[in-house]
Amino acid sequence: MPLTVLLAAGAANNDRYGPHIATALAGAGIAATLTDQAAPETVDYIVYAPSSPLQDFTPYRNAKAVLNLWAGVERITGNPTLTQPLCRMVDPGLTEGMVEWVVGHTMRHHIGIDRYTVAPDRTWNHDCPPLARDRKVAMLGIGALGETCARALKALNFHVEGWSRGPKSLPGLVTHQGQDGLKAALSGADFVVTLLPKTPDTENTINAETIGWMKRGAVILNPGRGALIDDEALLAALDSGQIGHATLDVFRVEPLPQDHPFWAHPRVTVTPHIAADTRPDTSAEVVAENIRRGEAGEPLLHLVDRVRGY
Amino acid sequence: MPLTVLLAAGAANNDRYGPHIATALAGAGIAATLTDQAAPETVDYIVYAPSSPLQDFTPYRNAKAVLNLWAGVERITGNPTLTQPLCRMVDPGLTEGMVEWVVGHTMRHHIGIDRYTVAPDRTWNHDCPPLARDRKVAMLGIGALGETCARALKALNFHVEGWSRGPKSLPGLVTHQGQDGLKAALSGADFVVTLLPKTPDTENTINAETIGWMKRGAVILNPGRGALIDDEALLAALDSGQIGHATLDVFRVEPLPQDHPFWAHPRVTVTPHIAADTRPDTSAEVVAENIRRGEAGEPLLHLVDRVRGY
Repeated sequence: MPLTVLLAAGAANNDRYGPHIATALAGAGIAATLTDQAAPETVDYIVYAPSSPLQDFTPYRNAKAVLNLWAGVERITGNPTLTQPLCRMVDPGLTEGMVEWVVGHTMRHHIGIDRYTVAPDRTWNHDCPPLARDRKVAMLGIGALGETCARALKALNFHVEGWSRGPKSLPGLVTHQGQDGLKAALSGADFVVTLLPKTPDTENTINAETIGWMKRGAVILNPGRGALIDDEALLAALDSGQIGHATLDVFRVEPLPQDHPFWAHPRVTVTPHIAADTRPDTSAEVVAENIRRGEAGEPLLHLVDRVRGY
Repeated sequence: MPLTVLLAAGAANNDRYGPHIATALAGAGIAATLTDQAAPETVDYIVYAPSSPLQDFTPYRNAKAVLNLWAGVERITGNPTLTQPLCRMVDPGLTEGMVEWVVGHTMRHHIGIDRYTVAPDRTWNHDCPPLARDRKVAMLGIGALGETCARALKALNFHVEGWSRGPKSLPGLVTHQGQDGLKAALSGADFVVTLLPKTPDTENTINAETIGWMKRGAVILNPGRGALIDDEALLAALDSGQIGHATLDVFRVEPLPQDHPFWAHPRVTVTPHIAADTRPDTSAEVVAENIRRGEAGEPLLHLVDRVRGY
């Protein structure tokens, strides 16, 4: 009997991702009915997005896993009705997009591109920018995304130091852990990239105290989660010059309200949550692989630890 | 008896590079007198820049090599008085700066940074840019600099194809050769980077015909030499939309005259010959190493082929 795979990612996402998932399931040789309407007790797997109308998982008592289409799961882990295994998305296309955003925006500030684009003064001043080998990047968060970004920047010669809350070591990368380690990671950093998951422990990781540990004029890049930054502390540091620039892709409220000071601040660049999007083709392969694993009794990929929150 | 090394790079360069060269020579254990004044027949090596007052090499009949501080040698190779071996500079700091300029400016266009910096419209349009894996870069010139830039872009997932005038293959890189190969390299390219040496054969490599082979809207990046591009053909292609943007670091006349149309063109970014500068500390090591090799009878690094011109 074919499996029943419920598309419950909201109508627009169902339309965008559904055909790619159908193709990927067929390619993996999995007999499945992919549908957005099914009697709950018949459902084997749920393809999910937090904005879905489906918020009560209780009736899906036979579902073997909930497969989230996005990397972030903070809007799901607190749902008390969700007792099924939950998987986050780690999509190669999403990871690539994130690396490209982080590298591109780091390079913009590193080689001073704005001087020639935003307000070119048409002078022939050929002072060269410093080399990447003389710049330190603190990568806060060294999970799948942070580690890949850290390695991409290291390959471009930046001096990269990673940081995680818990113990973690990665071959070939300098890493720090815990609150003491955070000070070491931030000290002397020219660039601070925040790629932590959103959990109660990571909220306001960038605050008045930790900003004070950074080098004067440091650039903050946040493609992670809006709540990682204390917005008021960041604005004060931008005004004082302690932070030279902030390039922000994520916000506590999205879309960022039109009257939010970030939009107009001369030292802030807003990008509209574009750093990493789940790509339909590459993510569909991950969904199909997890269903294959579930049926074969193999461990699911990217299973969320509900206690840790990611 | 110590060697006599003549600093003949012009007063400003002598001041900037001299102390680093003295340190590097001492570090290499080479006994040498480094001076900007010496009887020509006593000179063993000449550290040189083309803007030097020294233009007649005839009296330096005992000089074992002329060591140019810059990568470009087109202003020297035509000098009939220069019969001594000539070395160009391949400086690790210069190469790193070049890679950083090429990667930074490619990423600027690739992920569309200007939309958020030059004229931000404050809309929450979160269409993601394409991924680098879906972008083709044509790297014209795959010498020391071009190859390193090509590999850096490939590591970022761009589909890179190199081109050289003569036969050349590089492990792990798609390359094309000759005039037929140029069409193959340029076809479908989203980005064209010109890193060819300036020789009579490479002048106007980018012209009306070759521009016609590129994808409509392609971006040209020229950190190589101004003469590689037919300026009038480029301006016409920018106006027609065949070329989407040109980011230019080098020009036929430098500084770029204030009334040159490149300065004001909305689809041109001018950077003032900053992509690659010889760095005093790293280049001094190369000078010292070449003197050590000359004295040890070993082949000199980066020896110029006077017929080929680079």
